[in-house]
Amino acid sequence: MYRALYWSDEPAVVLLDQTRLPGETVELTCPDVPSLVEAMQRLAVRGAPLLGIAGGYGVALAVATGADVESAAYDLAHARPTAVNLTGGVVRVFAAYVDSGGDPAAVLAAAHALAAEEEAAGAAMSEHGLTLVEPGARILTHCNTGALAVGGPGSAFGVVLAAHQAGRLAHLWVDETRPLLQGARLTAWEAVQHGIPHSVLVDSAAASLMAAGEVDLVLVGADRIAADGAVANKIGTYSLAVIATYLGIPFVVVAPTSTIDPNTAHGAAMTVEQRDAEEVATFAGQRVTPPESPAWNPAFDVTPAGLITALVTERGVLQQPDRAGIAGLATR
Amino acid sequence: MYRALYWSDEPAVVLLDQTRLPGETVELTCPDVPSLVEAMQRLAVRGAPLLGIAGGYGVALAVATGADVESAAYDLAHARPTAVNLTGGVVRVFAAYVDSGGDPAAVLAAAHALAAEEEAAGAAMSEHGLTLVEPGARILTHCNTGALAVGGPGSAFGVVLAAHQAGRLAHLWVDETRPLLQGARLTAWEAVQHGIPHSVLVDSAAASLMAAGEVDLVLVGADRIAADGAVANKIGTYSLAVIATYLGIPFVVVAPTSTIDPNTAHGAAMTVEQRDAEEVATFAGQRVTPPESPAWNPAFDVTPAGLITALVTERGVLQQPDRAGIAGLATR
Repeated sequence: MYRALYWSDEPAVVLLDQTRLPGETVELTCPDVPSLVEAMQRLAVRGAPLLGIAGGYGVALAVATGADVESAAYDLAHARPTAVNLTGGVVRVFAAYVDSGGDPAAVLAAAHALAAEEEAAGAAMSEHGLTLVEPGARILTHCNTGALAVGGPGSAFGVVLAAHQAGRLAHLWVDETRPLLQGARLTAWEAVQHGIPHSVLVDSAAASLMAAGEVDLVLVGADRIAADGAVANKIGTYSLAVIATYLGIPFVVVAPTSTIDPNTAHGAAMTVEQRDAEEVATFAGQRVTPPESPAWNPAFDVTPAGLITALVTERGVLQQPDRAGIAGLATR
Repeated sequence: MYRALYWSDEPAVVLLDQTRLPGETVELTCPDVPSLVEAMQRLAVRGAPLLGIAGGYGVALAVATGADVESAAYDLAHARPTAVNLTGGVVRVFAAYVDSGGDPAAVLAAAHALAAEEEAAGAAMSEHGLTLVEPGARILTHCNTGALAVGGPGSAFGVVLAAHQAGRLAHLWVDETRPLLQGARLTAWEAVQHGIPHSVLVDSAAASLMAAGEVDLVLVGADRIAADGAVANKIGTYSLAVIATYLGIPFVVVAPTSTIDPNTAHGAAMTVEQRDAEEVATFAGQRVTPPESPAWNPAFDVTPAGLITALVTERGVLQQPDRAGIAGLATR
């Protein structure tokens, strides 16, 4: 149907350029590591698990193009600061490079294996998450967590898609997700591709929608999960978690275990990427604030485990995630 | 410094065209009622109290231009559905028209008197509201409630301005206020005009800002207040109220008593204007969602009185507003 990222033997990593959606469906060919790093930084490819896959293929690309692999791995791992998957993907394929004595075939095989695992994890998450969806469900989601962000069908969106295919989904509510509009641009686009009934709303309207009884379940992804179960995810996630908790609506996080960072002890220790103020000062490329006005633009927020009803991973459903539950998932 | 609306003897109602801010400061001359109604509908003039003043002057304009005054009053009162001030302003000046036997001078005097009263109310609100602001305060606000929305210095923004002038304001956090960006475009512009230190943020970032301890007080305006103290205000207000309540941060509404509608018994009975989906789907003519994606676009939400710490009107501060307290204000 559509492919967010694949390896080409040219060699190159080929991306569906997410900055051009939904207006244009354009592939972007990255023939070397610097172009791939740049694509990550300007969000042509994004989503924590997909960044991990991109990072893995990036190491393979460094080897295939004869680049300085150690330096390339460093650049890839530091392209974005919040997603632990990115570092994880880079480290794993770099280890194959070291272990194989630099054999290009072994390195590429490691990158392919990582991608296949993430795809299998996506399918498993969808299956487990579906058990939380009642027939006729109206689901609210934030940001983009479909195939454009995660291996396979997606994380939160993968569950939505499974619910749609099982005939259980009445409606998908799509937060537009300012500042970069991943919901309006990408999730809505994926919903259209799959024929999912949906509506887009401004982020701040989600609360009154929930208060009006129009939402049965909130499903979001995660960019990083700390050892205490706190979830770093797209800015606005914490807001939804507080509102859902206040109104008694289940708030469920769907993410592969590769998103768990056992080295981050708790939510407060997570690095939240502060992005360029221009993302707030402009809307769809047009300036909306006075030139004298600064902006505060955190890319993520942190939702404490206490606000999370359940965490769905490829290993199953963890109700009321806490430090012990997360430890059980991370060490399996 | 800047005037949002004034009467011209041409005759005409002259507006600062708010759809052109912050890029351009352009006056828009409305020489007849249809052009004024159109200006209201496309939000060239907006803000509940300012709409009331515009409605009053609109009746004077109908008289001065020899229009069918009854029909003009109807059109003015129905230009926007949520603001009770609009109907109030129109009815009051229309009454002067009837009482004076159609005397243009008497009608214009009634419109001027209404504007002067709203201006005095604005000044009084600022003074009362200032008593709730501690030195060094960091205030979060939503939408636009300054001179561009309310007679005089504004409602919530009037209190911010008073705090700034009294040396008590450390920082103003400005929600951008999707979909029409009244915060990013208008409140930020007013803050720049007054030299107020401020930052703009996307609406969904307010929750994590509050959780980080960076907000001492949330100040918002109101489009309509029901008899039970429920407040209809710009979409996103209810979300802030829930978050502030959850985090123990004072949530204060600032509005003139002309905003109270004793005929609306409770919040659920308030008509919430549903605006065109294109406001969410496009920006400045540029489409951000797929053409197949519908949007849900309520202009307002309703915040129950139980989430409101205090209501500031021109008559003083009402702590924990409820039906009895509102009745006391409305009937004075």
